[in-house]
Amino acid sequence: MEKIRIGIVGYGNIGKGLETAIQNNPDMELVAVFTRRDPSTLKIKDKKAKVVHFCDAEKYKETIDVMVLCTGSAKDLPVHGVEFAKMFNTVDSFDTHAKIPEYLKNVNESALSSGKVSIVSIGWDPGLFSMIRMISNAVLPNGKDYTFWGKGVSQGHSDAIRRVEGVKKGIQYTIPIESAVERVRKGENPDLTAGEKHIRECFVVCHEGADKNKIEAEIKNMPDYFADYQTKVHFIDEEEFEKNHTKMPHGGLVIRSGVTGEEILHNQTIEFSLKLESNPEFTSSVLLAYARAAYRMNKEGMKGAKTIFDVPIFYLSPKSRDELIKELL
Amino acid sequence: MEKIRIGIVGYGNIGKGLETAIQNNPDMELVAVFTRRDPSTLKIKDKKAKVVHFCDAEKYKETIDVMVLCTGSAKDLPVHGVEFAKMFNTVDSFDTHAKIPEYLKNVNESALSSGKVSIVSIGWDPGLFSMIRMISNAVLPNGKDYTFWGKGVSQGHSDAIRRVEGVKKGIQYTIPIESAVERVRKGENPDLTAGEKHIRECFVVCHEGADKNKIEAEIKNMPDYFADYQTKVHFIDEEEFEKNHTKMPHGGLVIRSGVTGEEILHNQTIEFSLKLESNPEFTSSVLLAYARAAYRMNKEGMKGAKTIFDVPIFYLSPKSRDELIKELL
Repeated sequence: MEKIRIGIVGYGNIGKGLETAIQNNPDMELVAVFTRRDPSTLKIKDKKAKVVHFCDAEKYKETIDVMVLCTGSAKDLPVHGVEFAKMFNTVDSFDTHAKIPEYLKNVNESALSSGKVSIVSIGWDPGLFSMIRMISNAVLPNGKDYTFWGKGVSQGHSDAIRRVEGVKKGIQYTIPIESAVERVRKGENPDLTAGEKHIRECFVVCHEGADKNKIEAEIKNMPDYFADYQTKVHFIDEEEFEKNHTKMPHGGLVIRSGVTGEEILHNQTIEFSLKLESNPEFTSSVLLAYARAAYRMNKEGMKGAKTIFDVPIFYLSPKSRDELIKELL
Repeated sequence: MEKIRIGIVGYGNIGKGLETAIQNNPDMELVAVFTRRDPSTLKIKDKKAKVVHFCDAEKYKETIDVMVLCTGSAKDLPVHGVEFAKMFNTVDSFDTHAKIPEYLKNVNESALSSGKVSIVSIGWDPGLFSMIRMISNAVLPNGKDYTFWGKGVSQGHSDAIRRVEGVKKGIQYTIPIESAVERVRKGENPDLTAGEKHIRECFVVCHEGADKNKIEAEIKNMPDYFADYQTKVHFIDEEEFEKNHTKMPHGGLVIRSGVTGEEILHNQTIEFSLKLESNPEFTSSVLLAYARAAYRMNKEGMKGAKTIFDVPIFYLSPKSRDELIKELL
């Protein structure tokens, strides 16, 4: 079988997840990991793949089919997405919601100029959750959407805890409030703020002699991050932290609750949920399926920037359309 | 706004559901309902729409944008799907799984000859459930799929009950076995027969003097339908039947339980579920969203028969791609 040749740009949690995910997809192989560091300092697991500096990416134009971009959304992707799309089919998980239209436009210009396909903002939110929201809105125009996140680790909130003085280690779990979920499932269509949908639970290891009351108050009153939420702070020792709080689980649910009918109205509920023991490994699995789509779409002559709304889903699978129709429709 | 002009072929539960659903979609209007009966004997709700005999369908080639085919999968659609696709964009819910490839091929020939788009096997299973199965298989190649149906009314099983001698009225609910669902959600990946996943609960009204023990035994031992299942039979009076058992709720769930990772494996679970108070109204809501897609795809020059795997989802919405990206991605 001719394999789809993958490049990974950036080797953080998602990049590492991709390397692993490629092992689970026999139609793919990893060619190289691209880094901004000195390549000799970066050790990767795949012995057959290379570690290459960003500056040398252009040399791989003929030997890499799809570049999966795993650098940050805040500052990196707005540059990397646009630059790599000038040379390669790309997939990324750009997740700064408000800036997606502008990013898409910029990447589209690059991808049209190179004649390649770039699929942007892929993962689970934005990504699979967006897909479900879109479809369920179209199917149930009279209804309301709800997205709950968790139970899972929020990197942004964990970072915020770690910035508090006296905190040595910290992690934050976002947890959906079960009673709110139940109200939505029953079709009550409640108006809920983010704070009425989620609890924030924090586990903190302090530096010796730190003032726990002060730390707890500072966390709970932090604007934007915690002040509007029911926040629980637990102080634990380092051993417990290392044992129980170093994984990256996540998940969440999207619910569309709507009605159909005229005189007699009927409640109709669509629910999609994820329970992930490893958020980065799942995100990279989604990215990889869309890398396959980018490759196949480009092979059929398509070009430009695409979103999850644009990609016919049969492109995601290594199976042929005929097989999929026979086995899974 | 220029409206999408819809024709409904067949006026059973789905056809009636469509008529109602069109009211909830301001970008659509019903032009006519097509029937094999004498049109003067069929009363529809929409006063502005016509009732027309099948034989006169061709006269509407210029005034109907999409025909939604709501006749039966067993004998009707294999003929109607092929015939209507020679004249119109069509959407249907053809659900005889084993015959979908052949049906698709035949409809495709018609649609290519007419230059129209036909989207086949739309609804929730086949339909949205197929979509979720396909995507989750591509994202989690190491895993297992489970589909549970219910709680809901199975028309086929209800018909089977009503054929038993002595039965006046009967209805059958398919109910997922909660303990089986829980095992799947926990990632145990059990092997489950259909009978280990579902209970069949029957409510029966007997003719006077009928032998209830005999009826119960006959139902429970009916091959294919009930013999392999845990089946409960309740005898009720007609009043209770009319009060509590004339609705058509349904639903179900699709779960893909998989693992990612290499040395350390992580469980990842994707779940999609529907809770429907009216199965036909929901099915027709899905059909209508895909009718919009058929219209828009054909307007852009596409033709031929498509499945849910082929249709980029932004076509389902009355909103523009730009709006969708801004609001829902």
